[in-house]
Amino acid sequence: MGRKAMSGRLSIIGTGPGNPEQMTPEALAAASDATEFFGYGPYLDRLSLRADQIRHASDNREELDRAKAALERAAAGANVCVVSGGDPGVFAMAAAVCEAIDNGPDAWRDVDLVVVPGITAMLAVAARIGAPLGHDFCAISLSDNLKPWPIIENRLRSVAQAGLVIALYNPISKARPWQLGKAFEILREVLPAATPVIFGRAAGRADERIAVARLAAAEASYADMATCVIIGSAETRVITRDGKPDLVYTPRFIKEEAR
Amino acid sequence: MGRKAMSGRLSIIGTGPGNPEQMTPEALAAASDATEFFGYGPYLDRLSLRADQIRHASDNREELDRAKAALERAAAGANVCVVSGGDPGVFAMAAAVCEAIDNGPDAWRDVDLVVVPGITAMLAVAARIGAPLGHDFCAISLSDNLKPWPIIENRLRSVAQAGLVIALYNPISKARPWQLGKAFEILREVLPAATPVIFGRAAGRADERIAVARLAAAEASYADMATCVIIGSAETRVITRDGKPDLVYTPRFIKEEAR
Repeated sequence: MGRKAMSGRLSIIGTGPGNPEQMTPEALAAASDATEFFGYGPYLDRLSLRADQIRHASDNREELDRAKAALERAAAGANVCVVSGGDPGVFAMAAAVCEAIDNGPDAWRDVDLVVVPGITAMLAVAARIGAPLGHDFCAISLSDNLKPWPIIENRLRSVAQAGLVIALYNPISKARPWQLGKAFEILREVLPAATPVIFGRAAGRADERIAVARLAAAEASYADMATCVIIGSAETRVITRDGKPDLVYTPRFIKEEAR
Repeated sequence: MGRKAMSGRLSIIGTGPGNPEQMTPEALAAASDATEFFGYGPYLDRLSLRADQIRHASDNREELDRAKAALERAAAGANVCVVSGGDPGVFAMAAAVCEAIDNGPDAWRDVDLVVVPGITAMLAVAARIGAPLGHDFCAISLSDNLKPWPIIENRLRSVAQAGLVIALYNPISKARPWQLGKAFEILREVLPAATPVIFGRAAGRADERIAVARLAAAEASYADMATCVIIGSAETRVITRDGKPDLVYTPRFIKEEAR
């Protein structure tokens, strides 16, 4: 009765990198069941919504407002779907919804919450080039809207010194033009000049562009907002092939004498 | 003519964590096209192979031998599929195949290589509990078959001090019984006692078991070979809910005063 009886369902789905063939049946089924949709317009466009399904498209920013609006509708009994690109748990809407629940009215805790994973950008980019994430790696958002820049610098130095491959999300935008160049500067102090750097834009989509540079020559201008940048470790290797793109991979093993 | 004309195709596919609803259409299509399959038996079992499709099941170890056998067949003109659990690029077969190409005969470089990404374990586990990977995180294999143990200790300390959430792959096995307990000891020196630790076993499968402990009380015995262990950062939070499992998430923001 009362609160419990009213509560609906909120699914947060990952549509993957944008190639429909990389969206899971689980995500499609969750979308098919839902009656109301919240998300960034281009992500909603990846679903073929029916006439009876309500679409609340919003700007790519405003994540917390969108999360609250979705929870409001779910708490009122609707079957709501929040739509993310990639995986909803990686720099995306699942954390925003959890934050809203943590700080919101009790009724939001009664909503049936389901997070449906998706292929996140670094996995799609890595697949297109070989296996750069074949050993220990990390994912770091370069957005200093989300955390102070000194923390980002410290994290980059720490993980590079520790030998992890680094996937950079949100590497660059009009409002954040210098951060990626600065990140390369920091990493050049720690990693060999020949370390492979992968610029993976729109992996799996029609406008895909995958390029490999060496750290010494890597430039921020190779990336845009749709790019995931993967920086190798000292172990990461490049395989050249006649008439085929290079492969980049990080070996599974580190021998005792390597360090 | 000659070498080029002979070369077949090698696709390395990720079947996801084991729930068929989490396997992408792209992976299914690659499997449908292939004529010969190489992989660990239980992963091959996830595909419904036709009578005309040849199955080479092998032990979960022997990754490099399996990669070589698959490349041999592809170089001879076969359409070969190497089958991984999760994502093939994360502690799995894509790196093994690249290693084999790097050190193998020239003809293996002519094989058309396609890596098809999948949902890796940490994403599936994270989805079942909220959004623990909502901010910067890393994936570390705890197997000291792959690298010397002192490197693992150093990496754990470095990433925990830097504030990254940690996903541990290969946390424990019969041959490696003490490493996870030792990892918890190291992390207790760096992280708060109340840091959430998620033990995610077989996420999305019938035998799923997801448990949350605090770092001070986390025990290696909560994990087995099929478990992905996610250790929060100092920012990671737990939301309690009446009659529903706790949610664990890492906020998207770190405020200036947090450090």
